[in-house]
Amino acid sequence: MDYNNWVRGELEVLSKSLGFRYLPREELNGRLTKLKASMDREGIEGVLVVEKMDQYYLSGTTQDGYLYVPLEGEPVFMARRELERASLESPLEDVVPIRSMRELPSLIGEHSGKLPRTLGLELDVFPVRDYFKCQSLFTGVQLMDASQVIRDIRKIKSPFEIDLMRVAGEIGKKVYLEGAEILREGMSEIEFAGLLEAAAKRYGHEGLLRVRSLNYEAYSWHVLSGPTGGIVSQSDSPMGGLGLSPAFPVGASLRIMRAHEPILVDFGTCYHGYQADETRMFSIGRMEKKFLDAYKACQEIHDAVLDQTRPGADCEALFMSTLRLAENMGYKESYLGPSGLQTRFAGHGIGLELNELPFLAKGHAYPLEEGMTFALEPKIVFPGEGAVGIENTVVVTKGGFEILTPLEQKIFRV
Amino acid sequence: MDYNNWVRGELEVLSKSLGFRYLPREELNGRLTKLKASMDREGIEGVLVVEKMDQYYLSGTTQDGYLYVPLEGEPVFMARRELERASLESPLEDVVPIRSMRELPSLIGEHSGKLPRTLGLELDVFPVRDYFKCQSLFTGVQLMDASQVIRDIRKIKSPFEIDLMRVAGEIGKKVYLEGAEILREGMSEIEFAGLLEAAAKRYGHEGLLRVRSLNYEAYSWHVLSGPTGGIVSQSDSPMGGLGLSPAFPVGASLRIMRAHEPILVDFGTCYHGYQADETRMFSIGRMEKKFLDAYKACQEIHDAVLDQTRPGADCEALFMSTLRLAENMGYKESYLGPSGLQTRFAGHGIGLELNELPFLAKGHAYPLEEGMTFALEPKIVFPGEGAVGIENTVVVTKGGFEILTPLEQKIFRV
Repeated sequence: MDYNNWVRGELEVLSKSLGFRYLPREELNGRLTKLKASMDREGIEGVLVVEKMDQYYLSGTTQDGYLYVPLEGEPVFMARRELERASLESPLEDVVPIRSMRELPSLIGEHSGKLPRTLGLELDVFPVRDYFKCQSLFTGVQLMDASQVIRDIRKIKSPFEIDLMRVAGEIGKKVYLEGAEILREGMSEIEFAGLLEAAAKRYGHEGLLRVRSLNYEAYSWHVLSGPTGGIVSQSDSPMGGLGLSPAFPVGASLRIMRAHEPILVDFGTCYHGYQADETRMFSIGRMEKKFLDAYKACQEIHDAVLDQTRPGADCEALFMSTLRLAENMGYKESYLGPSGLQTRFAGHGIGLELNELPFLAKGHAYPLEEGMTFALEPKIVFPGEGAVGIENTVVVTKGGFEILTPLEQKIFRV
Repeated sequence: MDYNNWVRGELEVLSKSLGFRYLPREELNGRLTKLKASMDREGIEGVLVVEKMDQYYLSGTTQDGYLYVPLEGEPVFMARRELERASLESPLEDVVPIRSMRELPSLIGEHSGKLPRTLGLELDVFPVRDYFKCQSLFTGVQLMDASQVIRDIRKIKSPFEIDLMRVAGEIGKKVYLEGAEILREGMSEIEFAGLLEAAAKRYGHEGLLRVRSLNYEAYSWHVLSGPTGGIVSQSDSPMGGLGLSPAFPVGASLRIMRAHEPILVDFGTCYHGYQADETRMFSIGRMEKKFLDAYKACQEIHDAVLDQTRPGADCEALFMSTLRLAENMGYKESYLGPSGLQTRFAGHGIGLELNELPFLAKGHAYPLEEGMTFALEPKIVFPGEGAVGIENTVVVTKGGFEILTPLEQKIFRV
C-alpha cells in the first residue's frame, strides 16, 4: 500500500472520526494578518518560525519543519520529515519538502522570488548553533528578534481558540469529579496523580503541558499533601512539591496521603494544544481550621480579582490588590509561598503555553484586553505543614470575564 | 516555622525515606575530572552549564540556576530560586544565591578570583537572547561551544548511573506485566496508555522523558494499534502514531483497539532522571501471520546486533548489518518505516536523554565502548496495516552487553 495515498485518504477520515479539528483557513488568515501588521511596524520582511507552538499557531501543523512567513505573499511550510501529513494538517497551500537547514535560502528564494532584507527569528528560544548556521546561510540578511511580535499576537485569543480551551476545561471538570471518587487514605500522591492523568487521557487530554523556555518543564501531576505542599522547588510557583527524585523534584511524590491534611491538586489539561489550568483542594475527612480559613482567604482574593476583571483593568494593579487583601487577612508572610520565597504573580496568561501574556504581576502595568486568557491562582503556604489555594482559567470578555474551568468551586472532601 | 530550617532537617529525612538518592561526591568527582580533561584539551577555561540534564549530571541538582565549572578550582552552583534545596541536592560545597543573569560575572569572579579567558556554553540548545546577554556581560571573554565536550563525557555511564537505569528497566517490566492484565478489546489506545502511565508512576516513574532539543517532545504513551502503527509523524521514529490532535500528532490516539491486530507498546520509564526504553507487542487474540513473521524478523535482527555488541564493534557497521538482514528476510521496503520515510538508525544512546551518543546509524563510524548504553529497536512498518518491533536497553560491558530491560522477550497475547 502506498503510504502517501493512505495519508491523503484514510488518515484524514480516521482522524476526523476521532475528533481532530484542523485549523480553518479563515482562522489562520486572521492570525497572519495580525502578524504581518506587527512585522510591518517592526521592519521585519520575513519570519522563520521554528518554535513548536508558534509554528502550530501560524500553520496548523506541528510536523517537523520550518515555516516561513513573508511580509508580502503567501507563507510556505517546509516539512523535514512528514510532508503528506503536514499538508493535511495545514491549510497553507504551499507545503514543500526540505532535507536540511542548508536548503532554507534556496527554498525561500524560490517561493518568494527573493530573500528578505530582514529576517525575524524567535531569539528567546532559538539555539545559538542554529543562529550561527542562519548567519552563514543568509549572507547579507539582517537577523532580528521576532519573539515578541509573535508572543504579542498570540495573547489575544479568537473564539476558535477559546472554544478549544473550553473543551480543555470540561475535561478538567470530569477529571476532578473522578478524582473525588478515587481518592482514599493510604494512596501515595503520585498514585492518585497517575490515576487523574489516566482519566484525563481517556477524555482526550494530550498529556504534555507546555512552557516557552529552555528548561522549564510543565507537568500535570501536581498533587501535594500536608508538608509537601510547603516545599518550594525549581518551578516559579508558590509550592513545588517534593517530586520523585533530585532529577524531578517537583509535583507529586511517593508520600502516603493522610486524613485531615490539605491535599492540593493543581492539574492542567490540554486539548488540541490549548490548556486549562485549575486547582482544587481535596481532603480525606475534615481539614484543620487553619487550612479552611486560609482556603477561604484564597477564594476571597480570587473572587475580588474577578470582580475587577474586564477590558482596561491594569494587570499590575490587580496583582497589588491581592497583596493588600492577603495582608489585611493576616497572610502577608504566607501568601504565594513561604516568606522570602514568594512568587511575584497571582495569575499567568495561558493558551498553547503556560507562560503567555498577560501576567498578573509586579512590573506588568498594562491593561487586560478582550480575548486575553489567564489562570488566576491565589495560594497560601505554611512551610512544614501544607498549602491551600484555588485556581481557575478565565477569558476576558467585553463585559467582564467567563470562567473556562466550570468545575464547582469547593473543597472536595471524601 | 522557618522554611530553610525545615528543608535542612525534615525535607532531607522525608526525601530519603521515600527513596531519593542524592549524587555522591565521589561520583561527581569522577565526572568533573573527565570534564576538566576535555576542557583542557579544547582550551576552555570555564564552562557555564545551563541545560537541565547537563546541570543535573555535573551538580546533582536540577534547581533553577547556573553551574559554573572552572578548569582550575571548585565549581559553584548559583541558585536562582531554591538555595536550601539546591544545597541539599548537590554535593558541591559552593552553592550560592543569584538574583539574575547580570550577577554572573561578579559571582564567578568572586568565586574563582578571576574570569576565564574562554567560557564554554551549551550552544546546541542555549537561546540566542541569553547568548547576547552573556556577550555583553562577559566583555573580553571568548565564548565557545561546550556542548560536544559535555555530551562526550556523558556517553560513558558509571556503575552508579547504570544502576539507576537498571531500576528504570525493572519499573518497565512491572508496567508491561500489569499491562497484560489490563488490556482488553474495546479500550482506546490512549486509555490503555494512560493506565500504563498510572502504573509506572505508582512505581516511581518520573513521567517526563527527555530529549536534548528545542522542539522534540518525548512521551511514554506510544501505544499504536493496527493502522495507527503505520503512521509517520514529527518524531524521528519508524512510526509516530496518530496522536490526539494536530497539536500532538504522535503516540496513542482515541482509536479503539480490536482483536487480532498488532498493538505496539513503546513505553519508556524514568528513574532519578535515567531512562530505560523498551518495546513489546501485544495482541488481543492471535495476530495475523504477516505480523508474526515480521516480529520474528525484528527479534532476529535484534539478536544479531546483540551477538556483535562488545567494546570495539563499529556502530555504523552494526546498523548496516541490520539493513542487510532485513533485506535478506524480504523487509527492505518496510524495515524502520514506510518506504521513503525510513529512519536512519536502529539504536540510540540513552541515559538522561533519549538522543545521547552512540547512535547505531549511518554516518556513525565509531566503536562501542564499555559503559555505553543504547536502546536497540528494529521495527517493521506496513502502511495502513500495522507495525511490529522489539526494543531493549543495553549497556556495553567488558565482555559484551547486559540487558537493562529484563522483561521477557515475547508477544503479550491476551
